[in-house]
Amino acid sequence: MLKLHFAPNSRAGRIVWLLEELGLPYEINKMAFHPKDLKSDEHRARHPLGRIPVLEDGDLMLWESGAIVEYILARYKNGGLKPAVEAAAFPTYLQWFHYCEGMVMPPVNTIIVQTVLLPPDRRSETALGQAQRLLTRAMAPVDEALAGSDYLIGDFSAADVMLGHAAFMANRLDCVTDEMANLKAYLARIEARPAFQTAITMK
Amino acid sequence: MLKLHFAPNSRAGRIVWLLEELGLPYEINKMAFHPKDLKSDEHRARHPLGRIPVLEDGDLMLWESGAIVEYILARYKNGGLKPAVEAAAFPTYLQWFHYCEGMVMPPVNTIIVQTVLLPPDRRSETALGQAQRLLTRAMAPVDEALAGSDYLIGDFSAADVMLGHAAFMANRLDCVTDEMANLKAYLARIEARPAFQTAITMK
Repeated sequence: MLKLHFAPNSRAGRIVWLLEELGLPYEINKMAFHPKDLKSDEHRARHPLGRIPVLEDGDLMLWESGAIVEYILARYKNGGLKPAVEAAAFPTYLQWFHYCEGMVMPPVNTIIVQTVLLPPDRRSETALGQAQRLLTRAMAPVDEALAGSDYLIGDFSAADVMLGHAAFMANRLDCVTDEMANLKAYLARIEARPAFQTAITMK
Repeated sequence: MLKLHFAPNSRAGRIVWLLEELGLPYEINKMAFHPKDLKSDEHRARHPLGRIPVLEDGDLMLWESGAIVEYILARYKNGGLKPAVEAAAFPTYLQWFHYCEGMVMPPVNTIIVQTVLLPPDRRSETALGQAQRLLTRAMAPVDEALAGSDYLIGDFSAADVMLGHAAFMANRLDCVTDEMANLKAYLARIEARPAFQTAITMK
């Protein structure tokens, strides 16, 4: 059975969300989002930098949430929640899937590092402000893309699992403005999905 | 014909490299890596944040280098330079493909922002040092993975186009140490590929 190495308030939530949406059985190893668990010898044997999520599938240890999503869809769902290569939505799906880590998560990471992870004397207000402005700017094209659309490519897809989760984090960091009405409505739709609720409330 | 909106010393080099490896014909729109080109109204009509690369294919404007690589392979090469879903190397391919933007590029970006893009009075030595240490740590698992292997999954693949390019940038930023002998040898192999040379010397 698939086994997910998990910690709350992290990218591991994406994988729980996907597994729940697909109705796939899985085991879960719950860790604290804290060095005592993530940087333990046990977890460093799974990922040398002590990151999550890690998906364990038999002998395989797989890192990177985007890779894990692609792997689960390809190996366990024959492309479910992803448009076919010839579909009109295929390139847009790819774009928003990759926009998550390419544009949104770098400033999300910086904000978390500069407000939570670093000791106060090593934080930089300048770096924090730059990241907040960049994250807010990065959300604007997502808001635009959602005009008249329930989900990023129309129907719910794995691009929503990636970028929707990142947008949820950006919103919690106050970088989704009230003017981004399409995005706010999208976040409400995502938060109403039972699979998302299971993922986001898991401790 | 595929048209690539390009600037030197950027992720756009990955797309030139891929197109050259595949022998696909393409047009190129060369811009300076400078706000006068990237933040122009003309380019903002292609990408609202003025980023590159952008791939133009008929009516389609596609952002995000990872998405563009996947799109070109799927639509123009029927999965070339990518292992089949059932292949043993498939999960590892996905992992290194996504490790590029997930782990390596965030500190690369921060280093470039903190040494080149920001005016000196807005730079943060603390943020720079953190990014340099993180980038060096992020390269260590790549060095390990390359022990006894010419490329990331054995044969050359699109994962090398993504992560190999990022590793090349990390090396230029002095974050690949001399102890990382596998990675240094890998970079020499990449730099010897004519398609890479075409991409990296394009102005």
